[in-house]
Amino acid sequence: MADTIRVGVVGASGYVGGELLRLLVNHRNVKLAIATSKQYNGEPVFRIHPNLRSFTDVQFTEPDATQLKQNCDFVFTAVPHGSAVKIVPSLIDASLKIVDMSADYRLKDPRAYEHWYRFAHPQIELLKSTTLGIPELYRDQIKTSRFVANPGCMAITSILALAPFVKAGFLDLEHIVVDAKIGSSGGGVKPTLGTHHAERYGVMRPYKPVDHRHTAEIEQELTNFAGREVRISMTPHAMNVVRGILCTIHCYTVDHVTNPQVWRLIRDFYQNCPFIRFVKDKKGISRYPDPKILPGSNFCDIGFEIDERMNRLLLLSATDNLMKGAAGNAVQCMNLMMGFDEREGLEFPGLHPI
Amino acid sequence: MADTIRVGVVGASGYVGGELLRLLVNHRNVKLAIATSKQYNGEPVFRIHPNLRSFTDVQFTEPDATQLKQNCDFVFTAVPHGSAVKIVPSLIDASLKIVDMSADYRLKDPRAYEHWYRFAHPQIELLKSTTLGIPELYRDQIKTSRFVANPGCMAITSILALAPFVKAGFLDLEHIVVDAKIGSSGGGVKPTLGTHHAERYGVMRPYKPVDHRHTAEIEQELTNFAGREVRISMTPHAMNVVRGILCTIHCYTVDHVTNPQVWRLIRDFYQNCPFIRFVKDKKGISRYPDPKILPGSNFCDIGFEIDERMNRLLLLSATDNLMKGAAGNAVQCMNLMMGFDEREGLEFPGLHPI
Amino acid sequence: MADTIRVGVVGASGYVGGELLRLLVNHRNVKLAIATSKQYNGEPVFRIHPNLRSFTDVQFTEPDATQLKQNCDFVFTAVPHGSAVKIVPSLIDASLKIVDMSADYRLKDPRAYEHWYRFAHPQIELLKSTTLGIPELYRDQIKTSRFVANPGCMAITSILALAPFVKAGFLDLEHIVVDAKIGSSGGGVKPTLGTHHAERYGVMRPYKPVDHRHTAEIEQELTNFAGREVRISMTPHAMNVVRGILCTIHCYTVDHVTNPQVWRLIRDFYQNCPFIRFVKDKKGISRYPDPKILPGSNFCDIGFEIDERMNRLLLLSATDNLMKGAAGNAVQCMNLMMGFDEREGLEFPGLHPI
Amino acid sequence: MADTIRVGVVGASGYVGGELLRLLVNHRNVKLAIATSKQYNGEPVFRIHPNLRSFTDVQFTEPDATQLKQNCDFVFTAVPHGSAVKIVPSLIDASLKIVDMSADYRLKDPRAYEHWYRFAHPQIELLKSTTLGIPELYRDQIKTSRFVANPGCMAITSILALAPFVKAGFLDLEHIVVDAKIGSSGGGVKPTLGTHHAERYGVMRPYKPVDHRHTAEIEQELTNFAGREVRISMTPHAMNVVRGILCTIHCYTVDHVTNPQVWRLIRDFYQNCPFIRFVKDKKGISRYPDPKILPGSNFCDIGFEIDERMNRLLLLSATDNLMKGAAGNAVQCMNLMMGFDEREGLEFPGLHPI
Repeated sequence: MADTIRVGVVGASGYVGGELLRLLVNHRNVKLAIATSKQYNGEPVFRIHPNLRSFTDVQFTEPDATQLKQNCDFVFTAVPHGSAVKIVPSLIDASLKIVDMSADYRLKDPRAYEHWYRFAHPQIELLKSTTLGIPELYRDQIKTSRFVANPGCMAITSILALAPFVKAGFLDLEHIVVDAKIGSSGGGVKPTLGTHHAERYGVMRPYKPVDHRHTAEIEQELTNFAGREVRISMTPHAMNVVRGILCTIHCYTVDHVTNPQVWRLIRDFYQNCPFIRFVKDKKGISRYPDPKILPGSNFCDIGFEIDERMNRLLLLSATDNLMKGAAGNAVQCMNLMMGFDEREGLEFPGLHPI
Repeated sequence: MADTIRVGVVGASGYVGGELLRLLVNHRNVKLAIATSKQYNGEPVFRIHPNLRSFTDVQFTEPDATQLKQNCDFVFTAVPHGSAVKIVPSLIDASLKIVDMSADYRLKDPRAYEHWYRFAHPQIELLKSTTLGIPELYRDQIKTSRFVANPGCMAITSILALAPFVKAGFLDLEHIVVDAKIGSSGGGVKPTLGTHHAERYGVMRPYKPVDHRHTAEIEQELTNFAGREVRISMTPHAMNVVRGILCTIHCYTVDHVTNPQVWRLIRDFYQNCPFIRFVKDKKGISRYPDPKILPGSNFCDIGFEIDERMNRLLLLSATDNLMKGAAGNAVQCMNLMMGFDEREGLEFPGLHPI
Repeated sequence: MADTIRVGVVGASGYVGGELLRLLVNHRNVKLAIATSKQYNGEPVFRIHPNLRSFTDVQFTEPDATQLKQNCDFVFTAVPHGSAVKIVPSLIDASLKIVDMSADYRLKDPRAYEHWYRFAHPQIELLKSTTLGIPELYRDQIKTSRFVANPGCMAITSILALAPFVKAGFLDLEHIVVDAKIGSSGGGVKPTLGTHHAERYGVMRPYKPVDHRHTAEIEQELTNFAGREVRISMTPHAMNVVRGILCTIHCYTVDHVTNPQVWRLIRDFYQNCPFIRFVKDKKGISRYPDPKILPGSNFCDIGFEIDERMNRLLLLSATDNLMKGAAGNAVQCMNLMMGFDEREGLEFPGLHPI
Repeated sequence: MADTIRVGVVGASGYVGGELLRLLVNHRNVKLAIATSKQYNGEPVFRIHPNLRSFTDVQFTEPDATQLKQNCDFVFTAVPHGSAVKIVPSLIDASLKIVDMSADYRLKDPRAYEHWYRFAHPQIELLKSTTLGIPELYRDQIKTSRFVANPGCMAITSILALAPFVKAGFLDLEHIVVDAKIGSSGGGVKPTLGTHHAERYGVMRPYKPVDHRHTAEIEQELTNFAGREVRISMTPHAMNVVRGILCTIHCYTVDHVTNPQVWRLIRDFYQNCPFIRFVKDKKGISRYPDPKILPGSNFCDIGFEIDERMNRLLLLSATDNLMKGAAGNAVQCMNLMMGFDEREGLEFPGLHPI
């Protein structure tokens, strides 16, 4: 097939940017054209992302809109929250297709930016027309979109587990608890005392245990699916791994539910979704989703258990936060936006053991 | 001081048994008299617990009731669930003081053993008269008891966080979620595929995510404090550390509560409790309880956060599962039962960093 | 291309077997035909290797020579040392091509089996005609071989670093020290007390610190390249990761050597070797080989440093023990034996961070 | 006993400083008087060292010589290399007893500072009169010293293993290889990209693999014991733990040696040394020294193995780098300097499992 597109990554020295590079250099329909980094301008990308040694000779360049427009067909913007709004509009104007990895376009309601980000969003119209990049929920829209906002890592992991049940009206919407566990790569590349190995190793450390910003994305989507306002109780924890998210979602059902009912619901909801796996076994040590086996893979593994005594439906979802939680999902969106095979570049099965 | 007692540990080759040995060999009022292990009979204890090399020359012996009665004043029974009922009564008859580490005497209601342990308890009268070994709740009773049942590790960690609020009537008792995270030592010393390093390292793995047996102990105690039946939603997870429990407890309050109210409540409740610390800081990276710093220490660190949007009270409690979750708490009980200083042998502050 | 071969893996429930399955199910020229396991006969392979969920429906079957002969063109034998000799000859007789993962055919000298394995080798003629599967050293031979013995993980990692320098006569052959560090997957899938997470986590534990069996393979190859007998000092250590080997090789040079000399030597030696990378940077945190970034990749990263004061040449080589140290290297051999692209199925670059 | 001294720690917010605080607050003969930190002036020490919560209310203060002189009898200086020379002389003049934790006074030869530290030492006379703080080698000198330089963590761990054999003339002094493995706390408290959890977790990373500065200390001491110049080959590696050093020391013996000879030699050499343990068992999983079990303890565990084929004597020594490698050893020195029991405050046995 003739389809090779030229792709740029803005903000390519961070962990999400680096994961995009990894996926792009091995993608059959992509030529990596530009990887920007102010800090590492002029350095080969493999100096920062040492796994790419021998895979590419691309060097980091200063971010430059003209260069991107001239040399790219598609751009991923992987810049900090609040920075994407400064570069995305001009890239859109230049007719580039774009997936933005930041939080700047995930929420529809500008007031939500004020509440959760203390940020007066300057592009309210663009917010409204942006497609949220969750292929399992918005595949058709993504296919025809030129601009997609990639969701937050804990948000997508939670939403994928909850959406079928909220839509089906199974749940007591007042008491949804998302207890999230996440590895250190989710916090980004910038060293701080809290991420210093001696301080971060071995922790089980709540961070932003109330009012975490991903709450807003989850509530937006669940509200959509419920048809009425939904609020959730979310608490993330830093855990002693580098990659991986487990969302343990404690819900109560409005009626008694059975295993076959739950099975049927999620299987029907996620037909033809190559990156959703259902994990619930009666034997073996891998009966539930576990992010341990997911590094490098694009799966969201979903499982559940019914707590009869409590009418509790326990939902479990696991991802690699840099893959289905970020770069992998974004490449999946690109594949859809460009008419490529949805799985292209995302076939890695993960490792066992690791 | 004349007070040196001779102490035996039955089941001393496991992790709880080994931690008891560590505490006992350095305890000013204790002479370690007997450490039993069928499997390692005749071996020096430091071959199995290598930290004790140069601390004791005691060797494992076969468990023998006569030996225990002749050579001990106090016995810890650290045998599997279902085995303690076979040895405890005769030790009681011999006028030994005892702390049992198993689950065999933690529940008051024999039907609870049938439900949670599939076990028809043979000593219903003894169940009723047994004191549950939570010094912060039952100090006076423990002081006068000759037989104490040490609580489960996740149970005590949860109960200590919840008791003040349940007693005070703060909480919506229908929606208490205990999301527990625990290290591998909590699973005991027996190797299995699930605990094999290559399989267990790096996991975030739910285990027994509904119907975990510690639920029964927690419900028993909360029911006591509430004055009416309380049921909880509990889900434990295996995490990538060896020691440590974090209980993230999601509750909803019946009324709006404030930080000072919560502070006052727990401070008042835990006056004069040397092993309860309150951890809630506005600065620094150690703002919440984190089991990372607790290995070897006997603290239960308790913190909280109020989620105004949800009327959620988030309680956080952390312990070393082998210390306040097992051996440390048991020695604290022994200290009370024998009239020693409650802190004796338990002064280790934990390490930073570790 | 018409070339699709049917491949069987004997002993597919272990870690090397599972890694072979992972590589084979994604290999363009391969159809996975048979995966044997006595223990898990009848189970789907993804129950044991959970990363393969949704990648294959193959189930484990009992090992059966007739089945293998009828349904396979190529077989990997991944059985314990001492077991391969029982099955390989009949597979050879059936005109299958084979890579054996065990130690049973790595050594040329039957006396070496007696010395290192306490094992009287029953097939001395076959030993002599077997090709050792190190593509970087024996590529042409492998291409024309029907039976290849895959080297040990620490052996290949050491040999690849040492061979160029031993061949060139750079080294004092009396004082070669191989200090190896390896993750837990190198010890296989069988749980023991020593591999129990609580015992194995956080170790820096020498094991078999003298007389380790991989010594024999390294000495055999170095003796070949030196043209005279070479003996080495090898000490492996168990380290706190699952995958990865770092060999720190301390050598002394017979003459003063310079950086450019060393560079030139290894670059010339390893021309056109797609899985050898040279890692020696002046900047950044990835200046030396580090197995951290290698899980899932087939690289052997080689670096060095010259210690002028001592005339010491420090060689550093890193691999994923299950990939270049086992399954990846074996698939590379299969590619050569079958005339496929040497890299096919082995393109995964590894992850950063992980 | 009347002996309570007032102790100050200069540079108390680092990891060595924090470990000193931990030991001092529980030391029977010590009152912690001053803990200085420019960065955290005014903060309670437990905000930075959270294990000390409830153990002390001391707050960090600005370092101030007058305050130290007025309020302390004994001072530990735990400041960066090159800073100690600026404060130690005035503290000596004020008749304080001092242990310096920096490298500034460990080497006797001022030219060594120029070679290894690029530093023209300003106090050559003081260098000569300083006692090196290795109690097992210089106990009597330390007892009568007012100023002691605490050795480097990898240096003391190596020296303790090598000294008996070098002194006895057992070793080929031309080919001593120290392959050291160390946890992240050895690199100090300052966050960098290389110590960022996502980058540092899971590494086996050589750092400063030739010309590491601790080489100088080791060579100085071995030269003393040999009576002629000794040079060694040293290579440290960053490993995936927080605390712990393992030195794997590969030596060649001048004559054939036997196990009993080696045993006798080290037992005789280290008579009455409470913090040296000999670890060499025939059974069990703890046959060799392993820093896994040492966190918080002050032991240097020493083991060995004889490689008959090579005339190699493999020495193994393990410490907690913050304890016997730093703060614990310094407190041991203080105990000797003050006439306290050598073990006081250092009785913690370490944990199993951990």
